Amino acid sequence: MIEPDNLFADIPSQLPEEMFTDLLSDGAFRLERIVSRGHTTPAGEWYDQAADEWVILLRGAAELLFEDEPGPVPLKPGDHLLIPARRRHRVHWTDPEQDTVWLALHRG
Amino acid sequence: MIEPDNLFADIPSQLPEEMFTDLLSDGAFRLERIVSRGHTTPAGEWYDQAADEWVILLRGAAELLFEDEPGPVPLKPGDHLLIPARRRHRVHWTDPEQDTVWLALHRG
Repeated sequence: MIEPDNLFADIPSQLPEEMFTDLLSDGAFRLERIVSRGHTTPAGEWYDQAADEWVILLRGAAELLFEDEPGPVPLKPGDHLLIPARRRHRVHWTDPEQDTVWLALHRG
Repeated sequence: MIEPDNLFADIPSQLPEEMFTDLLSDGAFRLERIVSRGHTTPAGEWYDQAADEWVILLRGAAELLFEDEPGPVPLKPGDHLLIPARRRHRVHWTDPEQDTVWLALHRG
């Protein structure tokens, strides 16, 4: 009997760090779940990735900041975007009052 | 200015056929959105795919049937599963009263 997993299950009540869980991985891509609860990228740090990343926010609320953009990009459930390789970005804000659940698909 | 797309937007009010929209595609994988509104796989037909498919239901409700399983697998929002290549399956039911929105990631 097939039992699906649920993306919104298995989230601990305490979440001192952002939570990263690989869902699928092969040589070509990696799909991961990210759970944030008020977490942000540490001040002054930027993600600067060698490969494209596609990300969708499915629960909660967040703001992404791109180094080459003037202000943060707010994200609500269902919002998705492709972050090209080497486009420096950071998680500027996630809602501290609820879980923010993302799917991220990393190329390569 | 970056404007995210939204997975739950741009769904026509009339949906005579199931709707398939590629979100990302390269040689290694293809990510698509599927919107169903009471649609099912035609009677007697099975999906029999050459590559693995990962699927997640994000809105609505559905049932998948696998040829080698005795009964349908109900899916609620957040439920995801990997359908291995050549595992024959069909969409047995989707809710006619609301949109069912899926993400499907096809390998290869």
